[in-house]
Amino acid sequence: MKIGVDVGGTKCLGVAVDTDGVVVAVDRRPTPHGTEELTATVCGLARALAEQTGFDEATFGVGLPGSITRHGVLTSSPHLPGVTNFDAGAAFSSDLGRPVAVTNDATCAVLAEWHLGAGRGVDNVVMITMGTGIGGGVIADGMLLLGANGYAGEFGHMMIDPNGPSCPCGQRGCWERYASGSAVALEAKRLAADGMLEAVVAQAGSIEAITSELVVAAAARGDADAVKVLDHFAYWMAAGLANLTNAFDPACFVLGGGLSEAAPVFEPMLRQHVAAAVYASNLRPQPEIRFAELGERAGAIGAALYGATR
Amino acid sequence: MKIGVDVGGTKCLGVAVDTDGVVVAVDRRPTPHGTEELTATVCGLARALAEQTGFDEATFGVGLPGSITRHGVLTSSPHLPGVTNFDAGAAFSSDLGRPVAVTNDATCAVLAEWHLGAGRGVDNVVMITMGTGIGGGVIADGMLLLGANGYAGEFGHMMIDPNGPSCPCGQRGCWERYASGSAVALEAKRLAADGMLEAVVAQAGSIEAITSELVVAAAARGDADAVKVLDHFAYWMAAGLANLTNAFDPACFVLGGGLSEAAPVFEPMLRQHVAAAVYASNLRPQPEIRFAELGERAGAIGAALYGATR
Repeated sequence: MKIGVDVGGTKCLGVAVDTDGVVVAVDRRPTPHGTEELTATVCGLARALAEQTGFDEATFGVGLPGSITRHGVLTSSPHLPGVTNFDAGAAFSSDLGRPVAVTNDATCAVLAEWHLGAGRGVDNVVMITMGTGIGGGVIADGMLLLGANGYAGEFGHMMIDPNGPSCPCGQRGCWERYASGSAVALEAKRLAADGMLEAVVAQAGSIEAITSELVVAAAARGDADAVKVLDHFAYWMAAGLANLTNAFDPACFVLGGGLSEAAPVFEPMLRQHVAAAVYASNLRPQPEIRFAELGERAGAIGAALYGATR
Repeated sequence: MKIGVDVGGTKCLGVAVDTDGVVVAVDRRPTPHGTEELTATVCGLARALAEQTGFDEATFGVGLPGSITRHGVLTSSPHLPGVTNFDAGAAFSSDLGRPVAVTNDATCAVLAEWHLGAGRGVDNVVMITMGTGIGGGVIADGMLLLGANGYAGEFGHMMIDPNGPSCPCGQRGCWERYASGSAVALEAKRLAADGMLEAVVAQAGSIEAITSELVVAAAARGDADAVKVLDHFAYWMAAGLANLTNAFDPACFVLGGGLSEAAPVFEPMLRQHVAAAVYASNLRPQPEIRFAELGERAGAIGAALYGATR
């Protein structure tokens, strides 16, 4: 049995996956603050799942949000305050008394979607997770890409506009300022401040309270201003996908993360913008655009798969 | 013996490489127009080299400028007018009566630099060839990256400024409009039109006749305007390298192509801009910047290596 835990900013989701790739047990716990508390929570969750299914035969993997080295050290994570340079692999392995493989959560997600979800059977897959920020993972020529340090596929801070808005990372015009869930909310607030999006503002209670979910719901109802916000998002998402097409030449993109639930609303706009943005689109097959199939479990399932192969 | 031919816009360069990676024969011929003429020239060159060293034991590889599929079809090439959708692999194999593996010239260059040049011993290498445009090749986790269609690593049309100059490809703000040899000449012409770069204009004879070589030579002499042009180039080169660092997490970049001969002049500026542009540079090892070691032979040597492994 393969045990995987996906650590998010608010909750830890654990799964047990059998040899056929079927999830046979699921559990979750709130994400605590601090490295010792995190270790206790992650390992407690993993142990509970493994004990249901046979601890001695279990393998263990954990996905963390942030930059993780090939050796399982979390160097930084905007979603886990106070956790930097944390040797998570060593801490988890020591607590469980078994090897625990640790990597980035989006790396886990692409592994899961490639083996069991939207990327099945495809040798070149680039996954984008669209949440608060943008995460990414790459299957290149049939292999999970890690990079020299373990940081490959971190697309959120790809610069796509040197005159764009400043980013907490210190640069300007990073992709995730344009094409993430928080970017949708930000663009909506900008338009609302100009007097647009009245219905969304009314529903939110104030401009500041606008969320990407409210914008998506309004667009689904046909609200023209909300559609405009999602078209802006789709334009910039496409610009980044075009750049990644030049870099990786994927057969397909898999889009996941919270915002992928809005796919029915923005998918037609996205396809149009991608077709216009991809280089030499008349001379090459277009990369397919697919949406993630494993939902919120992708990270945990991928962590389980990652743990089994390390 | 491994025979490799690198087809450029003006000349075809052929090499014979022995099992120790030593180049034991070199030959060159002008690049003709038309697919039949190209086939005769490439295969004539390859045959002549193979006959010097033992035709029956030879393997054959060819690097072409442009987009080449995994199956050796050249779909388009700005440098070979009139050659589109040319099944080069089939044509060359048929002419020689032996299998010939065909791929992109920058893909060949990274293979050569990885095995025998500046990228020796490094598992994650991204090569940039800085010529008229920008070409690229990637070694990812110890493997030559081809992508779904064979087009991985074509970085020249990565969009880095949505408000940038228009590109013949139909997009705006492509990287090669900022960070190639022709971009250096273009920026110099722009400054010259504003009355700057007097010495370079005098040397060139006219603004239109300015070349990147003249700008580099002037910068090497300490011409402040020419240094400004190269600093502009270095800034944008760094912006692209930072994006590729997020995507591939390479241990090192290898910069090649004609403009790499100007490395002594722009290297300090480039290093400064890269350090400022790379995401989370305080938390991760910086990718190394190296310059190609195999010079103009890199493409032909890489073609020979590519032919031997297919």
